[in-house]
Amino acid sequence: MLFHVRMDVNIPNDLPKAEAADIIAREKAYSQDLQKSGKWRHIWRIVGQYANYSVFDVKDNAELHEILSGLPLFKFMDLEVTPLVRHPSAVRDDDS
Amino acid sequence: MLFHVRMDVNIPNDLPKAEAADIIAREKAYSQDLQKSGKWRHIWRIVGQYANYSVFDVKDNAELHEILSGLPLFKFMDLEVTPLVRHPSAVRDDDS
Amino acid sequence: MLFHVRMDVNIPNDLPKAEAADIIAREKAYSQDLQKSGKWRHIWRIVGQYANYSVFDVKDNAELHEILSGLPLFKFMDLEVTPLVRHPSAVRDDDS
Amino acid sequence: MLFHVRMDVNIPNDLPKAEAADIIAREKAYSQDLQKSGKWRHIWRIVGQYANYSVFDVKDNAELHEILSGLPLFKFMDLEVTPLVRHPSAVRDDDS
Amino acid sequence: MLFHVRMDVNIPNDLPKAEAADIIAREKAYSQDLQKSGKWRHIWRIVGQYANYSVFDVKDNAELHEILSGLPLFKFMDLEVTPLVRHPSAVRDDDS
Amino acid sequence: MLFHVRMDVNIPNDLPKAEAADIIAREKAYSQDLQKSGKWRHIWRIVGQYANYSVFDVKDNAELHEILSGLPLFKFMDLEVTPLVRHPSAVRDDDS
Amino acid sequence: MLFHVRMDVNIPNDLPKAEAADIIAREKAYSQDLQKSGKWRHIWRIVGQYANYSVFDVKDNAELHEILSGLPLFKFMDLEVTPLVRHPSAVRDDDS
Amino acid sequence: MLFHVRMDVNIPNDLPKAEAADIIAREKAYSQDLQKSGKWRHIWRIVGQYANYSVFDVKDNAELHEILSGLPLFKFMDLEVTPLVRHPSAVRDDDS
Amino acid sequence: MLFHVRMDVNIPNDLPKAEAADIIAREKAYSQDLQKSGKWRHIWRIVGQYANYSVFDVKDNAELHEILSGLPLFKFMDLEVTPLVRHPSAVRDDDS
Amino acid sequence: MLFHVRMDVNIPNDLPKAEAADIIAREKAYSQDLQKSGKWRHIWRIVGQYANYSVFDVKDNAELHEILSGLPLFKFMDLEVTPLVRHPSAVRDDDS
Repeated sequence: MLFHVRMDVNIPNDLPKAEAADIIAREKAYSQDLQKSGKWRHIWRIVGQYANYSVFDVKDNAELHEILSGLPLFKFMDLEVTPLVRHPSAVRDDDS
Repeated sequence: MLFHVRMDVNIPNDLPKAEAADIIAREKAYSQDLQKSGKWRHIWRIVGQYANYSVFDVKDNAELHEILSGLPLFKFMDLEVTPLVRHPSAVRDDDS
Repeated sequence: MLFHVRMDVNIPNDLPKAEAADIIAREKAYSQDLQKSGKWRHIWRIVGQYANYSVFDVKDNAELHEILSGLPLFKFMDLEVTPLVRHPSAVRDDDS
Repeated sequence: MLFHVRMDVNIPNDLPKAEAADIIAREKAYSQDLQKSGKWRHIWRIVGQYANYSVFDVKDNAELHEILSGLPLFKFMDLEVTPLVRHPSAVRDDDS
Repeated sequence: MLFHVRMDVNIPNDLPKAEAADIIAREKAYSQDLQKSGKWRHIWRIVGQYANYSVFDVKDNAELHEILSGLPLFKFMDLEVTPLVRHPSAVRDDDS
Repeated sequence: MLFHVRMDVNIPNDLPKAEAADIIAREKAYSQDLQKSGKWRHIWRIVGQYANYSVFDVKDNAELHEILSGLPLFKFMDLEVTPLVRHPSAVRDDDS
Repeated sequence: MLFHVRMDVNIPNDLPKAEAADIIAREKAYSQDLQKSGKWRHIWRIVGQYANYSVFDVKDNAELHEILSGLPLFKFMDLEVTPLVRHPSAVRDDDS
Repeated sequence: MLFHVRMDVNIPNDLPKAEAADIIAREKAYSQDLQKSGKWRHIWRIVGQYANYSVFDVKDNAELHEILSGLPLFKFMDLEVTPLVRHPSAVRDDDS
Repeated sequence: MLFHVRMDVNIPNDLPKAEAADIIAREKAYSQDLQKSGKWRHIWRIVGQYANYSVFDVKDNAELHEILSGLPLFKFMDLEVTPLVRHPSAVRDDDS
Repeated sequence: MLFHVRMDVNIPNDLPKAEAADIIAREKAYSQDLQKSGKWRHIWRIVGQYANYSVFDVKDNAELHEILSGLPLFKFMDLEVTPLVRHPSAVRDDDS
């Protein structure tokens, strides 16, 4: 089941640099593990923004919430979640 | 080069049904040709909306504008275009 | 799997009264069938608005989209869909 | 009498962790007591957000304000209150 | 129980003048009856707008919805409803 | 001459508690004096908000500005001022 | 007593040209009479817009509402009214 | 050449009082000099706001930017600039 | 003197095709004449929109308003005008 | 390939002055190098704002993101990126 998520990151200017670097490193590892498992289906950087558009493939809402609320950067993010469904004109097998 | 596009369709209530059906059929064919060519990389229906999120893979801005302004439903759509770039955490080859 | 949906109805002033009445009657029957089946879990009128808040319990996004896009009033509605998950403080069994 | 409430929580980053944990624990107990009493009728987590949709069943506006302004997290919340009434198509007894 | 309501009126330009005049006359009578009964506690015109701020005193949400949805101008209005409660600094007896 | 004012209060989290309590006490006295004088005609708490709707009866704009800018909480408030005039359907003597 | 008003004009495309021309001519005469009387203190066109910023000098809210609701273009305008008061730094006698 | 400017002032709560008072005093002198020179044509306080509407009469965009960016309060202000032109209905000589 | 203008075009669906084509042809000629004269300094199509960003070089506000209000498509456009000034970091001679 | 970018700068009030001055100096050098190379095609200051409109000429989205995310002021900026294409009415060679 697919969900579209926009993530905007706002790290406060007064967060110690080492702490920020640590969170960002953990975020990257967390994201790549989920990408490899197939649950984090797509991720693209938005040009000129500290933000991304992602597509998740999860078994239900609960699994999506668990993944998102577990993001190391979660408390510094604005998230916007949109449920998706196969488009009637889609031709590509993996767009559903 | 990738672009994220949100398309919202608003067909006026007084458009003759036959004309609407014809435009929608041409839209579907137009979209599927571009999907098969690889230029319209992804398309997903947004749940509960007459709207979709799409990702295009084009050689430049001009090609994207030619594709979008040629959509049979173009004059009944609100389009929102966002340029994308490979995310530094991406692992999937075709997310760029 | 639960989803929160806000529905705002805007019936155009020039829709013939008989046609409007017919759509509204079909909408009511459609809604009540789904409520009885348990898929349309809750529906409340918003005071002073031709609008409602509803909660749906469906097996996946596709089922929700099929239900919503099949609403007799669908083309006269603005819909806003929000995925829900059990709240960690919830005590009531059927809030998930 | 039913009210729909959206609650968004924003705990400042510089609140001491122990103080935050204490407030959150008191919030949970406060919510569960009201749920058990039947006044806090429903609560659902919004996927990907530190936020919930709730439905309250109170005897009047004053009781609702007393409950909301007494929330341990009140000063860190944005609240949006909407009065509800039984929907003319509702079939479920307890949706009013 | 008090509610604050903002009403904005938008009568379509193509509504026949006689029909508009009839609705407006019925609206005035409807409003004055409710004012005399004490349920429509206050009404003020907003300067430069075809709009008003009103305060209603009703026994519950259902009565308020019945009053508002019964307004002869209801389908040409945007309504915004806000529940009120006595202010802790209020000195005037009838502000609650 | 009547004016409708919405006041939203945002006291910063780092204001010393004693200072906040002192300002709030002075605000209450200030408001009650003006209510007794008849200049602050109405005040209602908005349910679930640290906010109120008020109606002022002043001799001109200058008097209103003097009152509002003298509020002890002024620098922590967002104010929205709307001039009012007697509604043509009003029946109550003191709604003008 | 001074008020700042922004006026945006939206004449529907299907209004007969002669009717539009007549309304616009009456609007101009109406405005110039009020300017000569001193009540419509200033009027400036906003560059690139069918809109103006104006300043009115009236004896009270009621007089302002009477003037604005009497504008021949009133039903085709969006009006935004802001009460003004002499600025503490003002040096010019007629800015109050 | 005339420009309409709205200025909203937001002085941070943690700015030392003496520093704030000094900036405000310099702002007043700066404004009054420009008013006397005729370049700052009008200034009015907005009722209930730490804000003003002003009209500037400058020889070009560059002169306006030099004036605005030189405001002692500039870094604590939100500015909104609108170019003006003589209104075709204006009768007053100095409204252009 | 430079101004940035965003133009969004909305031609109503019920405008006769021949009339629309005529207006568009006149718009093109009007724009190209001004471009050749140097007053319409730049024009770019926004990808996926019936809209453009333009830069005008005019002697004053009045000339800009005359140009914009004379656009054949003026009544079908939303215009947003922003005054510009040479940037302190600019190196290119003709960016002022 | 052209992109329109609006940049709004918000330097926090508590950033040490020397650090701010250093970042601003590096921003200027960075911008001027890119302008000389032809990649930062235009830059204009917005009157009354710490903001600019710019046009970039880059070979693809990736190059634009590299330039923008490398701006010394990047973390203190809000950026809004819009892809451009040659306008069908353009006459100037270098507007594409």
